[in-house]
Amino acid sequence: MKKVIWSALSAAEQQAVLLRPAMAASESITDTVAHIIEQVTTEGDAALKKLSAQFDKVELNDIRLSSQAMKEACDSIPAPLKTALREAFRNIRSFHAAQVSRPLSVETQPGVVCEMHSRAIEAVGLYIPGGSAPLPSTVLMLGVPSEIAGCKRRVLVSPPPIAPEIVFAASLCGIDEIYQVGGAQAVAALAFGTESVPKVDKIFGPGNSFVTEAKRQVSQAIGGASIDMPAGPSEVMVIADARANADFIAADLLSQAEHGPDSQVVVVTPSDKLADEVNQALTRQVAKLSRADIAEKALENSIAIVCQDMAEAVVISNIYGPEHLIVQTKNPRQYLNDIQHAGSVFLGDWTPESVGDYASGTNHVLPTYGYVRTYSSLSLMDFCKRFTVQELSADGLSGLAPVVTAIADAEGLDAHANAVHVRTQALEGSK
Amino acid sequence: MKKVIWSALSAAEQQAVLLRPAMAASESITDTVAHIIEQVTTEGDAALKKLSAQFDKVELNDIRLSSQAMKEACDSIPAPLKTALREAFRNIRSFHAAQVSRPLSVETQPGVVCEMHSRAIEAVGLYIPGGSAPLPSTVLMLGVPSEIAGCKRRVLVSPPPIAPEIVFAASLCGIDEIYQVGGAQAVAALAFGTESVPKVDKIFGPGNSFVTEAKRQVSQAIGGASIDMPAGPSEVMVIADARANADFIAADLLSQAEHGPDSQVVVVTPSDKLADEVNQALTRQVAKLSRADIAEKALENSIAIVCQDMAEAVVISNIYGPEHLIVQTKNPRQYLNDIQHAGSVFLGDWTPESVGDYASGTNHVLPTYGYVRTYSSLSLMDFCKRFTVQELSADGLSGLAPVVTAIADAEGLDAHANAVHVRTQALEGSK
Ligand SMILES: [Zn+2]
Ligand SMILES: [Zn+2]
Repeated sequence: MKKVIWSALSAAEQQAVLLRPAMAASESITDTVAHIIEQVTTEGDAALKKLSAQFDKVELNDIRLSSQAMKEACDSIPAPLKTALREAFRNIRSFHAAQVSRPLSVETQPGVVCEMHSRAIEAVGLYIPGGSAPLPSTVLMLGVPSEIAGCKRRVLVSPPPIAPEIVFAASLCGIDEIYQVGGAQAVAALAFGTESVPKVDKIFGPGNSFVTEAKRQVSQAIGGASIDMPAGPSEVMVIADARANADFIAADLLSQAEHGPDSQVVVVTPSDKLADEVNQALTRQVAKLSRADIAEKALENSIAIVCQDMAEAVVISNIYGPEHLIVQTKNPRQYLNDIQHAGSVFLGDWTPESVGDYASGTNHVLPTYGYVRTYSSLSLMDFCKRFTVQELSADGLSGLAPVVTAIADAEGLDAHANAVHVRTQALEGSK
Repeated sequence: MKKVIWSALSAAEQQAVLLRPAMAASESITDTVAHIIEQVTTEGDAALKKLSAQFDKVELNDIRLSSQAMKEACDSIPAPLKTALREAFRNIRSFHAAQVSRPLSVETQPGVVCEMHSRAIEAVGLYIPGGSAPLPSTVLMLGVPSEIAGCKRRVLVSPPPIAPEIVFAASLCGIDEIYQVGGAQAVAALAFGTESVPKVDKIFGPGNSFVTEAKRQVSQAIGGASIDMPAGPSEVMVIADARANADFIAADLLSQAEHGPDSQVVVVTPSDKLADEVNQALTRQVAKLSRADIAEKALENSIAIVCQDMAEAVVISNIYGPEHLIVQTKNPRQYLNDIQHAGSVFLGDWTPESVGDYASGTNHVLPTYGYVRTYSSLSLMDFCKRFTVQELSADGLSGLAPVVTAIADAEGLDAHANAVHVRTQALEGSK
């Protein structure tokens, strides 16, 4: 892990230190994905089967998982893991249920009532990555809020063969519609529908660069689907004072680093000594990991920044805007008001990132790559949309009429004024 | 206005009736906009001046409006219009201030606290269209929530010459940073910054097809800016029972039609007689409008649908998903629970769309073109982002540890489990 002294850097060098690696879909990925989407929209299920054979080396008979297969998958999960997933489910449910908003109603002036109402998004697609390590936790992060929101149709897709842990997590969330299809072809199927896979309104979930590019493309296509948020490599920043535990910090950095070689890992501290101790702890800990290769690759781009004091550490963290921000200081809550840009914040020595990844209750789908400046942590709101309602009494309209007609006149929109006039004239006539 | 009997149509014909006209950015617009963005990012202010001369026929000295020019503009507004805009401002402010959310805090299990906090988006760009009819109302719709949110920097852009009504509305919202630049070049300047125009995080507001395409392009560019929502032609659907007033309905349809020749205008009613009366009222009313040409063009694509009963009218409205939905029935509120997809709903005889456009308090920036299925009416939330916070006590971590490590093991992520282990071991050691 490289170490830099913040105050010794020029402004340009400081900027360079916090610069994320360029992330641009290669032209070849863009074209491949466009071609896959075209195949799925023209050939439907046949394309899904062909592409699954090609990319996942799996010959599919039924794209949808049968209820028998789901039952068998659930039965195969060891009891302790079932218990753990149930407890995680319960915490995630309790935090997301607290996000339910009640309808808002305001009488802005006499007889003029304005309201805001929320409705579940009708059909949602939940993409769960496959691969060697199945991600049941991601199922919970998408399944729980979609259940609380009341989305009528929840369609889970994941590359074949689907791990039983994913099926069990889905069943906890009451999801019974699971399709064994992954990659850009799964995203295309969700966005446009095929004979087997229903079209959905919005697609959620992480994926590899093909999935990410497919989500981007369908979100831009007329008749496609909305998406949760733009994607990027996962990141953690730890800000820590001199008394922080170097082993804890190293463990947190490594739990980010093991996600992938492109993971971003940064520690910011006023203590030069702590920075060195973290480095030593990293060396000790990384060797023991099963994913040491991946973590070591990620650590090559990682950085320790030695700053003046904790106030400056918070400033640096706001410039960077990390997906995960871990604050390991004596009184971490004192910095919360100054934290402007982060996806999720972990306060204190006893709050490693992995609790948020799995089980504290917060959502682990977070904006990354600086998108925290405008995007939010995934929440119940992302599975709903809100519309306004207004209702005026006859007196309410009479009271508001002069305001509306004056502005309509200023904007040169006669018919807007006339829609008020025909009504006030009718009221005059009826008196 | 064409009239159809819903039950006489085949399913395919029903679908065709509610189909919106294709909306695809022409390749020439895409290329022109890409070229404009490139010019602005490479040449900065010089490009803005060149493009303003080319498109707006205005030679700019200063891109930013001086405080002297702002003061003069405000002084030139007639008192009655000032009063009207102030009253609209007050209603919009009161409805949007009610949207402020308090931080959420939930103890999901003993010693595990999860929170959600909100922060204003730091820098926002507000695009206000120019043209013959200035839109001070749009300034209020973007200026008020950005003020309540507490966005640090609010940058208003509008094509030169900027109408004094726009400047006055901006001053009501406390906006003092106004730039005389419009079109795709203004969007590019907001997204990437120039010598004069600051880069912003998110761009709001309506515009012509060049502005819309520029917003789309910068929202897809790394280092660009987020945008409020995808754009489309404006729409109204009126659902009405037999007792509804045909003149009111015609006036509402026309206030949508006068917005532009691509406006979508639909009325749905179980009363064949009412459908015909609306048609006659349209003919009477349209002739008197100053924008009769535009409205007549829009009416060419408009449609009256005669259905079985009001329940079916609501079903049709949910299939269409109109930007504006006006419900003119005896007891309009009885249908509210069944309304799933709409941008803003206007209940009853005394609630024309124009009250929501200007002054009831709701926001007039709404999803259109069917985007209501996943997008929301613009609200305070769009000027904020939310992040989660978690804080565990040592006991809280001990309680949650088995859950986290079991799931980490299932996902094959050692380092995630280790971040918990190093801490529980430290706790054991300290006992
Ligand atoms: Zn993780
Ligand atoms: Zn209007």
